[in-house]
Amino acid sequence: MRVLGVDPGLTRCGVGVVEGRPGRPGDLVFVGVVQTDPGLELSQRLLHLDRELTRLIADHRPEQVAVERVFSQHNVRTVMGTAQAGAVALLAAARAGLPVAMYTPSEVKAAVTGSGQAGKEQVTAMVTRLLRLTERPKPADAADALALAICHTWRGAVKNKLAEAAAAAKKGSYR
Amino acid sequence: MRVLGVDPGLTRCGVGVVEGRPGRPGDLVFVGVVQTDPGLELSQRLLHLDRELTRLIADHRPEQVAVERVFSQHNVRTVMGTAQAGAVALLAAARAGLPVAMYTPSEVKAAVTGSGQAGKEQVTAMVTRLLRLTERPKPADAADALALAICHTWRGAVKNKLAEAAAAAKKGSYR
Repeated sequence: MRVLGVDPGLTRCGVGVVEGRPGRPGDLVFVGVVQTDPGLELSQRLLHLDRELTRLIADHRPEQVAVERVFSQHNVRTVMGTAQAGAVALLAAARAGLPVAMYTPSEVKAAVTGSGQAGKEQVTAMVTRLLRLTERPKPADAADALALAICHTWRGAVKNKLAEAAAAAKKGSYR
Repeated sequence: MRVLGVDPGLTRCGVGVVEGRPGRPGDLVFVGVVQTDPGLELSQRLLHLDRELTRLIADHRPEQVAVERVFSQHNVRTVMGTAQAGAVALLAAARAGLPVAMYTPSEVKAAVTGSGQAGKEQVTAMVTRLLRLTERPKPADAADALALAICHTWRGAVKNKLAEAAAAAKKGSYR
């Protein structure tokens, strides 16, 4: 399963594509950061982000998309930009007909490091190890996007199995 | 000048198109509300909103778009949805190549009622009078979208004149 992970941000939006299977290490397909100029009008920044994400989806053909769920506890001004960039990512995925999952930062950390409290350094170290990279992905936004994609290949698969089991059980009960 | 006003919201997004000129009353072209089902996934709600706004722009051909600037003081959960819906509106405008202006709620209230502290009731009453409508636009989101459009026909024009004057002065200084 090929997954695009997006760590939304208006100034820097982390993007990472991973080809993976549950319980397997997974392979890096693409990693990068989409940047928009803070000097541009907001609508133009969102347009630039939309075009880059749409092109990335066309180029790397992910089957599913995982986006970080924005949290309201942080600095409110930052949250607004993150929510707007996240909306563009969700929309680009939906326009391409791709299913989208959202994960909180602690769900992602727990999936790749075993601890929801892990620091950025630890997440980057595990992403580097899990994908057998020769150097650490930079900046942190790019590593986070890869962590999201890895998290989804593992957790999404579990969710799918649970859904299948539930569907099978339901079907059985009608026999 | 034909202006689309958007009062962004995820559940209800007010939209209003006004044909107007600075200092003139202006004419109603279209008013409505785009609703999205809270039971749908977020990405699907944003997709629905994007499609409706894109269609509305194609149908009514506004030359400019005015979107309410989202404020962080409100309930943080609501603000997230408003920021996401606002991002979709800004993006739809930018994709159509239309210039976008943003106004705070108090700028809009001041433009149509003379007071930045005016209540919703008063804004609706003024919109009804200014556009010579036989009945009040409902719900409040629709009236707010029309108020945004009226605000922009007036204030945007002043901004344009100032910009023209500044450009002319600058040009003059180089002669």
